[in-house]
Amino acid sequence: MNPDVLYSPIDSIREAAKLFPTPFFLYEERRIRENCRRIKDAFGKKFPGFTPLFAVKANSNPDVLRIVLDEGFGFDASSESEVWIAKKLSARGMFTGNFNSKEELSAAREAGLILNLDDISMIPWLSEIGVPEIVSFRINPGIGKGSMDSLVLAGPDAKFGVPFEKAADAYAQAKSLGVHRFGIHMMTGSNVLSEDYFSEIVRKLFSIMADVHKKTGIQFECMNIGGGFGVPYRPEEKSLDLDVVAENLRSVFDEELKKYGLTEPRLYVEPGRYITADAGWLVTKVLVVKEGYKKFIGVDAACNDMPRPSIYGAYHHVTILDGPPAQEVVSVVGRICENNDQFAKDRELPVMRVDDVVVIHNCGAHAYVMGHNYNGRLKHAEYLIALDGTIKRIRPAQTVDDLFRGTNIA
Amino acid sequence: MNPDVLYSPIDSIREAAKLFPTPFFLYEERRIRENCRRIKDAFGKKFPGFTPLFAVKANSNPDVLRIVLDEGFGFDASSESEVWIAKKLSARGMFTGNFNSKEELSAAREAGLILNLDDISMIPWLSEIGVPEIVSFRINPGIGKGSMDSLVLAGPDAKFGVPFEKAADAYAQAKSLGVHRFGIHMMTGSNVLSEDYFSEIVRKLFSIMADVHKKTGIQFECMNIGGGFGVPYRPEEKSLDLDVVAENLRSVFDEELKKYGLTEPRLYVEPGRYITADAGWLVTKVLVVKEGYKKFIGVDAACNDMPRPSIYGAYHHVTILDGPPAQEVVSVVGRICENNDQFAKDRELPVMRVDDVVVIHNCGAHAYVMGHNYNGRLKHAEYLIALDGTIKRIRPAQTVDDLFRGTNIA
Repeated sequence: MNPDVLYSPIDSIREAAKLFPTPFFLYEERRIRENCRRIKDAFGKKFPGFTPLFAVKANSNPDVLRIVLDEGFGFDASSESEVWIAKKLSARGMFTGNFNSKEELSAAREAGLILNLDDISMIPWLSEIGVPEIVSFRINPGIGKGSMDSLVLAGPDAKFGVPFEKAADAYAQAKSLGVHRFGIHMMTGSNVLSEDYFSEIVRKLFSIMADVHKKTGIQFECMNIGGGFGVPYRPEEKSLDLDVVAENLRSVFDEELKKYGLTEPRLYVEPGRYITADAGWLVTKVLVVKEGYKKFIGVDAACNDMPRPSIYGAYHHVTILDGPPAQEVVSVVGRICENNDQFAKDRELPVMRVDDVVVIHNCGAHAYVMGHNYNGRLKHAEYLIALDGTIKRIRPAQTVDDLFRGTNIA
Repeated sequence: MNPDVLYSPIDSIREAAKLFPTPFFLYEERRIRENCRRIKDAFGKKFPGFTPLFAVKANSNPDVLRIVLDEGFGFDASSESEVWIAKKLSARGMFTGNFNSKEELSAAREAGLILNLDDISMIPWLSEIGVPEIVSFRINPGIGKGSMDSLVLAGPDAKFGVPFEKAADAYAQAKSLGVHRFGIHMMTGSNVLSEDYFSEIVRKLFSIMADVHKKTGIQFECMNIGGGFGVPYRPEEKSLDLDVVAENLRSVFDEELKKYGLTEPRLYVEPGRYITADAGWLVTKVLVVKEGYKKFIGVDAACNDMPRPSIYGAYHHVTILDGPPAQEVVSVVGRICENNDQFAKDRELPVMRVDDVVVIHNCGAHAYVMGHNYNGRLKHAEYLIALDGTIKRIRPAQTVDDLFRGTNIA
């Protein structure tokens, strides 16, 4: 196994599993900060005015958000409640939605976020909500990449962004409404582990910017290349080399700026997964060892806690605290009445017994935030390992009251 | 289109869309009661002591639950909070979990629900929580059926139930612990539209009961054949003929009871989808008409409201209130940052404009209850059309406070 991937703070996990009822999410402040710094270091030294944003959709726990803010990140917000939390925490950043309402755009503008418009038909709304100083468009460059189909966020089948052929028209319309400063954005894929991908997509974006510039005279103040920075989910995968990504991007910038006579835009990125995925674990306990037609290890977490395997068939690494050396092929499953509620399917793992602690890796991003209450299952608590090693609860487990709040049951 | 399928109370939907902010779920009491009665009529006249249970996981709104209770249904509960609501509403029924905890089983026993054990390793727990008078086992008959993979709930790959080869051992263990009365349960698939399926599976179950009876002398007081009664999701599908299902089952009962010398068990069923799916609609409005590489209709609901298309690729019928006769091929999509957030993909629908009301059908079951808050999207309100035609809110929309409750943000 690559020593850098699928890291876990075993001692803290063991301590937490003794102190708190399972299942729970556990995040590590140190790792979150390290991930932030990897991004800042790699790009900051090559791009003047580099501006990292954190994709709030990956992990919106306020304590986690405060850490990334403290590391100098802004926010990438995508909905009204993400705008709300940005305002509450005085975060700057961008609002990138998809099929927004006018009310959402208005709230985002009021919170001081740069509006990144998803469609040309939204431009007239700007007059109604107050034309902002700066506007960006999310461009669909016609190509995209992702580790699974639903994460391919651009290309002809994607519902996102303005087709690049219409970009010049979009900017011209915004300019004529009185917008003075401009950004450009794309987010074409997610969880990408290939260093070359980012250069390819930025080269495409420069050609779009050149076209817009030629037709409208506009220069771009910022260029947001989205997130998509992948993390290894499997032990055999290697980490994305951010220095290589940044170096390649710098070369593309140098070549393309010169080629097209453009002034250099500030580079924005909006990672989510890269910052928190490998800084979070779902800690669960074995409830039942079932000798069915296959061997099933039933744990006290389920797909309602962390739905990625059930929705995408996503691989998440699973380890056992203090498991024996003996291994066997088992499926680690949750309690939801759907057969896709399986954290690991037919995987060779240490022989487990009831009450063993099972750790599901890469649960710091797109995990708790995707959780639901199907089968009446409640969402569990979130804890944070602070820099000094102390572990504090940063969100309580849901109760039955939360589930039935506001209904006619009192 | 089959006149009986994809029914909707157009006038009430139109009225609700005028009165209340979209999106919202709308259920109809009349249809729920009709569906309950279809089940009771079809089976009740052929099976003495017929006992219908409602699968709470399909729709757990207390106002909906009160309707099915009023129709004489009990509850099929599958988790601690479903046990809680059963107790709160004084419902009788069964507890059928999967990889339960001892605490869950204890709570279910205390609520007076029949325990339906999912694994043989849970039998010793009965001594700890107090041996109940009656116990049932969920049997995996080694075969299963469902409209999609994750809904195949039995067979060699399913995590559910006791393999039938071990059934006799399970009942013998329970008997020796002091259990006096016995039930047997299976739930092998979901959303089945073939009438023959149910007979096939019950025949299998009788052969298992005969084996258990031969080895242990046990007679069965109840036989729960699960749910799985399908409803049409597509206009071209036909409804399940419950009278045919019941008639076929009666023949199987008569033959098998005689063949094996068994006394007749009370028949239990536990439909969820059949009762509420086609009695519920997700009512949403067009926010944006996007001329992308394809034409996208962006609505104000999203896959976080009703995740079945995003998770299963499930078809849901979509109609437009007062749409024009002119049709075009569009994709009706939500606002979540995943490209699987599409209610209808490349479907021929009436030409739509901003603010048109879009109705998504079959949203009364496995819809609201599967909802989540990804992208910080809030869950929307639920309304009920009462028998007298009045429309009342039966659950408010979530607020940002709900989303961040208990976190360090005050």
